[in-house]
Order: sequence, then structure tokens, then C-alpha cells
Amino acid sequence: MSGSEESQMAEEQISRKAAKKEAAKQEKLRRRQVSTLSAAASSLSLDDPFAHNYGDVPLSSLQSSEDADVNDWTEVGSLNESWNGREVLIRGRAQTIRAVGKKMAFVVVREKGFTVQCVVTSQPESVSLQMVKFVASLSRESIVDVFGLVSVPTVPIKGASQQVEVQVKKLYCISRAISTLPINIEDAARSEIEIEKALQAGEQLVRVNQDTRLNYRVLDVRTPANQGIFRIQCQVSTIFRQFLLFEGFVEIHTPKLIAGSSEGGSSVFKLDYKGQPACLAQSPQLHKQMSICGDFGRVFEIGPVFRAEDSFTHRHLCEFTGLDVEMEIKKHYSEVMDVVDRLFVKMFDYLNENCKKELEAVGRQYPFEPLKYLPKTLRLKFEEGIQMLKDANVEVDPLGDLNTEAERKLGQLVLEKYGTEFYILHRYPLAVRPFYTMPCHDSPLYSNSFDVFIRGEEIISGAQRVHVPDFLAERAQACGIDVNTISTYIDSFRYGAPPHGGFGVGLERVVMLFCGLNNIRKTSLFPRDPLRIAP
Amino acid sequence: MSGSEESQMAEEQISRKAAKKEAAKQEKLRRRQVSTLSAAASSLSLDDPFAHNYGDVPLSSLQSSEDADVNDWTEVGSLNESWNGREVLIRGRAQTIRAVGKKMAFVVVREKGFTVQCVVTSQPESVSLQMVKFVASLSRESIVDVFGLVSVPTVPIKGASQQVEVQVKKLYCISRAISTLPINIEDAARSEIEIEKALQAGEQLVRVNQDTRLNYRVLDVRTPANQGIFRIQCQVSTIFRQFLLFEGFVEIHTPKLIAGSSEGGSSVFKLDYKGQPACLAQSPQLHKQMSICGDFGRVFEIGPVFRAEDSFTHRHLCEFTGLDVEMEIKKHYSEVMDVVDRLFVKMFDYLNENCKKELEAVGRQYPFEPLKYLPKTLRLKFEEGIQMLKDANVEVDPLGDLNTEAERKLGQLVLEKYGTEFYILHRYPLAVRPFYTMPCHDSPLYSNSFDVFIRGEEIISGAQRVHVPDFLAERAQACGIDVNTISTYIDSFRYGAPPHGGFGVGLERVVMLFCGLNNIRKTSLFPRDPLRIAP
Repeated sequence: MSGSEESQMAEEQISRKAAKKEAAKQEKLRRRQVSTLSAAASSLSLDDPFAHNYGDVPLSSLQSSEDADVNDWTEVGSLNESWNGREVLIRGRAQTIRAVGKKMAFVVVREKGFTVQCVVTSQPESVSLQMVKFVASLSRESIVDVFGLVSVPTVPIKGASQQVEVQVKKLYCISRAISTLPINIEDAARSEIEIEKALQAGEQLVRVNQDTRLNYRVLDVRTPANQGIFRIQCQVSTIFRQFLLFEGFVEIHTPKLIAGSSEGGSSVFKLDYKGQPACLAQSPQLHKQMSICGDFGRVFEIGPVFRAEDSFTHRHLCEFTGLDVEMEIKKHYSEVMDVVDRLFVKMFDYLNENCKKELEAVGRQYPFEPLKYLPKTLRLKFEEGIQMLKDANVEVDPLGDLNTEAERKLGQLVLEKYGTEFYILHRYPLAVRPFYTMPCHDSPLYSNSFDVFIRGEEIISGAQRVHVPDFLAERAQACGIDVNTISTYIDSFRYGAPPHGGFGVGLERVVMLFCGLNNIRKTSLFPRDPLRIAP
Repeated sequence: MSGSEESQMAEEQISRKAAKKEAAKQEKLRRRQVSTLSAAASSLSLDDPFAHNYGDVPLSSLQSSEDADVNDWTEVGSLNESWNGREVLIRGRAQTIRAVGKKMAFVVVREKGFTVQCVVTSQPESVSLQMVKFVASLSRESIVDVFGLVSVPTVPIKGASQQVEVQVKKLYCISRAISTLPINIEDAARSEIEIEKALQAGEQLVRVNQDTRLNYRVLDVRTPANQGIFRIQCQVSTIFRQFLLFEGFVEIHTPKLIAGSSEGGSSVFKLDYKGQPACLAQSPQLHKQMSICGDFGRVFEIGPVFRAEDSFTHRHLCEFTGLDVEMEIKKHYSEVMDVVDRLFVKMFDYLNENCKKELEAVGRQYPFEPLKYLPKTLRLKFEEGIQMLKDANVEVDPLGDLNTEAERKLGQLVLEKYGTEFYILHRYPLAVRPFYTMPCHDSPLYSNSFDVFIRGEEIISGAQRVHVPDFLAERAQACGIDVNTISTYIDSFRYGAPPHGGFGVGLERVVMLFCGLNNIRKTSLFPRDPLRIAP
């Protein structure tokens, strides 16, 4: 879809929505009188004439027994002073529940990271003491429907994001959480700084460790920081896709089940495919190149990538989401670097401008400095990088790969010299790149390849590829790969192959490094590492 | 990104592009004089003073030895009468090569499905007989750079899409295809109708069978129909995504490597995960529901789905691209059907309006009638469907699933009665749905579920899910599933779970059925079935 068509589609939807909403609002007030809320709540008792105003909603009422106008509900995040004096129906989680004597209870209701304080006060003509008791007995994280009158308190509300209060008239529990949760959201949402501060004041606060978080990921991801992280992740892939579609790339889906090993080298997950030995693709490399041979011109893919490596680092996963690009080039791999440059600068600009709320939420728990990057991305030759390291007395093999430490150090040096934490290092030694990498025209020791770094860590690898079949076979052999296992791939280039190049990025790494996080498990929804295959 | 932001992004890019293009054009004319084309072509010979105007480009010139201004090249698809009298540089495949005597040769150059006729005529002051010979000897599907003067012939050009001709001044071969291709593009692009017609006229044309096509997929996908199919596929997932993002859905990525079997029931691909038994996810079902428990509200995923079933039908694959949706609902599974309805009507409208060229290309080889669908999608109850079949004397089990034949028949009946080939059938018998499906409130025999059909074939399955943990365990047990293997999943609902529902679609099926194709292998780039794991 083009931008203008999308915007038209957006406008249409907006105007339809607005009209529908207005009609719904009018209807709402009328319907409130006859109660749209689930009746027959389990609290019904003879000694409480207002028992129908609260209770646990029975399953039968949640089995699609009646149609709902979803417009009856208002999102917590949209509640503000303009709602003063109006009645509202919300659904969310009871984040905290606090009773004040027998006559009053406070419930902070959370929906999509936004919270609002709801107050239940016993009143002779509508709210019974039993109702207050019911509310006070709710377990945290239970799902509730709350109907009440919005008011604006005179003093600011501390424990909730929305600066209005709901005077509860009806409250139904839709789904009750068990009373003792394996982790409390407020513990999971706490920053190290808070824990340290409390410790200095003599108070020991709960610190939820990474493994516990991941074991109960469903609770862990409810924290504001995690809600932010995965909404940012969604934006990263959206911008990636939009940008490339706009530039004429075609989205493809290549198979993850392949015969043989996808690139050779590092370890693969093996499996039996209907009696044939097979493995999981370590990258869409071969198939995305074959798509170029298939005349799609420029392609990209967003999909899982599998690595059976025994890497127990903060930046490796056994399964992650690959963002892969492959494109015809006219003459030079700089055409690929141009795409990287424009795409990522656009992405960072967009995230900073449009994900402020999410970035703040992440930063509150995991403080970080905004990424420093240039409008036009710095490109350094590998040899220049080596020289910078040498000048700083760091010993490195000029024709070897950089280790993590050297990468970090170079990141520091580049930041000091050029003021950027995002840069491209190109013309890597041929020996440290995969067999399909095109050697440089002026030296067989170097290659037309590049890595891209954020905050001193590699996130992107790219290169011009060898498009000449016999030379490709020669390179594969030189790298110790059995040419027979990749003959289909090599043959693809025998039917005419344009010069081409591409790159691959790990989605989780982009989010981790943009947000300055210390562990890739924080940016994978259900991470997989050598020791973890659950939940 | 919102629609207006995208459109702004689009405009920015357009204006930047336009400015750049204009500047490039000015520069172009100047630079042409000094020749930007790859020099040192291998044809250099002493007896031809114009040897530098043609030849095979050596590898060294294609190893990023010099920067290219990609704007020097013009896309074949943009060549029209306005180019008359101007010089142009294009890159594409030599689709057909035809010599007329020794002094003239025609080459049809194809790029992204567009073709233009190029003419080489020997001329004493620039084009040698050797050059004509070189061009005539090119192998089909080779990649060439052509530089020449655009002219508009007085008679229409039959063998090319663009109605201009290029008088060749220079022609270099970038990549030579082998001279005998395993399949010829024109054979692969031929429709059954053409073959039949020729046969009636006594001519036997080559028919490329499905397996040969798939064995040489890299050649097969170069046909106009296949280029169209995969561009339509790209649009389908784009619209799917845009629509859902606009409606507040978050894109997620769930693991494909899971412990145990993902839903039980049909066969899974098993593998060894670092010493633990594991399998490939048959759907993101459990994890997308867990994401709802994790407070993302509304989520979707586009990713591979693995089925080890031994299904040798026209509509089953062992690996396909799943489009999955899961969302909180307030009261009724109709809220999920509403999303299906609006999403797919929007999608069909969009494809019909914006993919005309691609749909035509598909239709030329595989003729089909445009899909008949209603602006508001028909919803039929399963019992109504059964009644319609009974009335038509089709015997069906009222509490069983519909077989393929019954589905097709019902599709016919619905088309006759309601004039649509796209409809929703809901309230399926509980017994034929997965364990996590919510039973109906008024009958334990039926469920809050639905299937969606296109042209009499199922493409979407959806339902409200059981969100009550104990009931979910009970249902799993009743369906013969070992509850221990899915305990993490069931436990997810113990921490408070909103009522929710969702659906899953196969991307390849949507494209196949929208285009009325007869085999799902036509809409999978590199299909995987029980007998095929290559290329």
C-alpha cells in the first residue's frame, strides 16, 4: 500500500469510528439505566438488597451469551478531566486493593499500562458493606469490570497514571487470579536503583531475578518496562517493513525446514523430515539469494532464525527474529550500505519521536542514555578501525575478526572521535566472512562486506555476494563446505544472476541496544537459549 | 506508525527522490560522453575498433571496483514515448535473442516482468559486425546492460510490454546463463488453453509439470504469473498487518521451538533440543494466548507453521506462513468475527483495486473469475449450513465436521442463495474443535467457534477460547491430552485472564483461493510437502 492510500484507509476508519462512538455514547446513558453489565453475579444473597451490583461473574455469562457493544467500555488510558461527572465502564486488572476500615476500599485498575484509582464507599441507597468487603477481598491481577462516576480530586493522585477517580457503583470480577502470585508485578517493575536506595535506608526489597521472570513470563511482561519493550519491538519491525516496501522491496517467506545445513559452520538443529535428514535454517541466506535469482529484484524477510550454538552470553539466543534483506546492486556494495544507513536513521528518528512513552517506561526501570547517531551514518574501513585500536594500544590481528572486547573498545574510540554510537565498519578480512562473500577487487585478503555496530556491539552483518557459480563453488570448497550439499543453491546462479548483496539484523538485538539493555532475553517474548525451552 | 505519519514519510521520500532524480538526469547526459559503463570487456580484439562497446564484463569490474550512481539506470517498466530521442541505460535479462542476417539482431530485455525490444544494427562508425555477432550469441536469461537511443516505432511492438525500441549503442553481458536451461521461461509461462489450442492445430507445445517447476523454482518464478502471485502475497500480508496495527494490535514473535507437542493431535516434527525432547510449533496458539494473559490486549503474528501430516492434497503443506490473531473480547466471539469481516473485505477491495496488473498476469496463465464477496460478510450458523445441505440431499453428520466435499457443496449453495463466495460458518460442534475452544453457553454440543470459506474451501479457523484454568484442564483431559505437558500454558490463566478469542489463516491459502488457483504449491515460494524438502 502506498502512503496516501494508507492515510485514506486511516481516515475512513477514523470517521466511521467517530460516528459509531457518538451513537454509542447516546445509547450508553439510556442503557446504563437497565444495566448492561453481567447480571446473576455469584454474590447474590438475601440480606443484601444491592447484591446485583457486584460479585464474581459466572462462566455462563462469559460464554458469548449476549452480544456486547464494545463501545460501552472506555479505555483507562483515555480517562481525563473531561470525563468529570460522567459515568464510565472500564475493564482491567485490579493492580492494588486496599481497604480503609469496613466502609471503604480502593482499587487501582490497570489496562495496557495505564492505571486509574477506583473508590468503593458504602452508601445506604446503593453500595452495601458486603460490596466493600467483596472488593477488598479481590486478589491482585484479577480482571474486573468497574462501572462508576468519574470525579476529579483536588489533590494529585500518586498511585495511578490517570488524574481522575472513579466512584464505584458496580464492580464485577470477570476472572479471579490466584491469591499468591509467583511474582508480584510491583516487584518485577522495580529498578535496581530503587532496590539499592531502599537497602541504604535499611529496607530489603524483593529483587526478581531473570530466571524467575522468564519462568513466569506471563506475569513479568505485564510491567510497564516490558509493555514498552515489546511495543517498541513491534514498531521496529513495522518501520523496517514500511521503509523497504516503499523502496520497492518484496516481502518473502522462505522455508525454515531445509535439507543439509543451511550455511555450514556453526551448529544446526537437526531433525528427521519424513525419513530424510533435515535441519532448521540458520538464516534465510541461501533462499533469499535464490529469490534474487528468481527476479524479485529486492526482497526482505522477517522470520525466525535457529542457532544451536552453545553460547551462554547476554547477546545470543537459540531462536531469534531475523530481519533479512537482499537486493540487486548495479556496481558496489555501498548501495546496500546506503539502504542500511537510511533505514536505520529513519528508524531511530521515528522511535525517538513516536515511542516517547514506551522509551520512558523502559528507562524508568532500566535507565539509559538516548542513542547517539549521525544523520548520515559514519562508514569506517576495517583497516581504519584496526589502526584506531592500534593507536589506542589494543592488540588485534589485522586479518582476524574483532572479539567482543575489541568491538566495544572501538565503539568507545569511534564515539570519542566521531560522536556516534552507530556506525558501519566495512571491508572485513575475507577469511572471517562466510564463503558466499565477494572478495574485494583490489585484494583477495579483504571482502566487500560490512558489520554495523550500536553501542559497541555488532547488530548487522552484510555484504556483496559471489554471483558467479564456479567461483562460488570454489569459495565454498576453500571454506571446507561440501559443494554437493549446496548444489541447488550454486546452480541457481547458472541461469543468469545479477550482482547482489544484502544484510541481516536480529530484531531482539536492535531493541536491546537501542534501549541500552543488558540482556537479549529482555527483548525476546519467550526466549530460547541452550538451557531454556519453556514457557 | 499512523496513516498520516506514513503519508508524511512517503511524501518526504518522494520529494527527496524527485530532486535527486532531476539532478541525476542532468549529470547523466554529461557523463554519458565519457562512458559510465564497465570498460575492459573481454571482447577486446585488434580487428574491431569498436570492441569497447560490447563484451562480457569481467568479474573484477563487478566486485565493487567503482561506485555506481544507481540513477544512471532506468527501469524497463518506465520506458514510454516520452523517452523518444533520448539515450537510456537499462539492466535486465535477455529474454529472447534473434539474429536477422549478420547485420542485425533483436534482444528483448526483461526487468521485473516488463520487456523492451532492443535492436543492434551494424553501422560503420560505431557498431561492428562482431558486436552483432556477440549479441546474437547471448544465451537466454543472461543479465545485460544495454545503452542506446530510444525510438518509437510506427507499428505496435508485439513481443514486448513497452511500446518503444532501443537502438543499441553498447551492450555488455553482466552474467551469462548456461545455454540450455532446464526449463524455458516461455514454456513455464504458457497457459493450458494455449497448449490445448495448439494441440488442436496439430502443434505439440512443451508443458512444464509442477515437479519440474518446483525443482527449478528459480527459473519458474520468473514467469509473469509467478511474479504476480508473490507480489500479491506480499500485499496480502501487508494489508493484514496494516489493518491490525491500525486497530491497536501488537505484532509479536513467538517461539517455534517448543517442549512437548504444541497442541497435541496431529503430527509434529520432533527434534533434540540440547538433550531435551522438543518439537516445532504447529501454530502459535498457546503462546499467542499467553501473550493475551501478558496484557498485550490484541496481538498478531506472521510466521512459519509446521505440520508433519502426511497430507498429499492440493491444499496442505508441511510448512506454511500463518497469519495469527488473538484478542481480548468483552462478551462475545462475534467481536472476533467482526475483525475477520472488516479485515478481509478491506483486503479484497484493496487487491482488486491496487493489484490489477498482478491479477491480470496471474489470470493470463491461470484464468479465474474475480471473487464474489459482500460488503458485510455473511454469517451462517453451522446448523443452518447443515440444513442447507440436507435440503440439497447431501448427507452429513449434524455434529461432525464437514468434509472437503460437503464444504464445496455448501459453498455452491451459499453462492446460489446469497451471491457470495466468502462467508463465515459459526457455532461448530464442540467435538470437532480443539480443546481450548469455548463451548456455547446454551449447549455443550456446540462451540463459540467459526470457520471462514473462500470458493468453498476453508481458509480461517477461529473461536472464543476457554480462559478459566480448571475448565481448560478439564477440556484438555476430555480431549485426551496429557495436562502435564501443557501445565505452563494452563497456569497462565491462573493469574487472571480476560475472555479472549482469535483466529488463524494460512497466507498461501488466501492467495491461492483469492486467485482461484488449483494448488497451494503455486503460492509458496519454496514449498515443503511430505515428499519435498528442496530446493
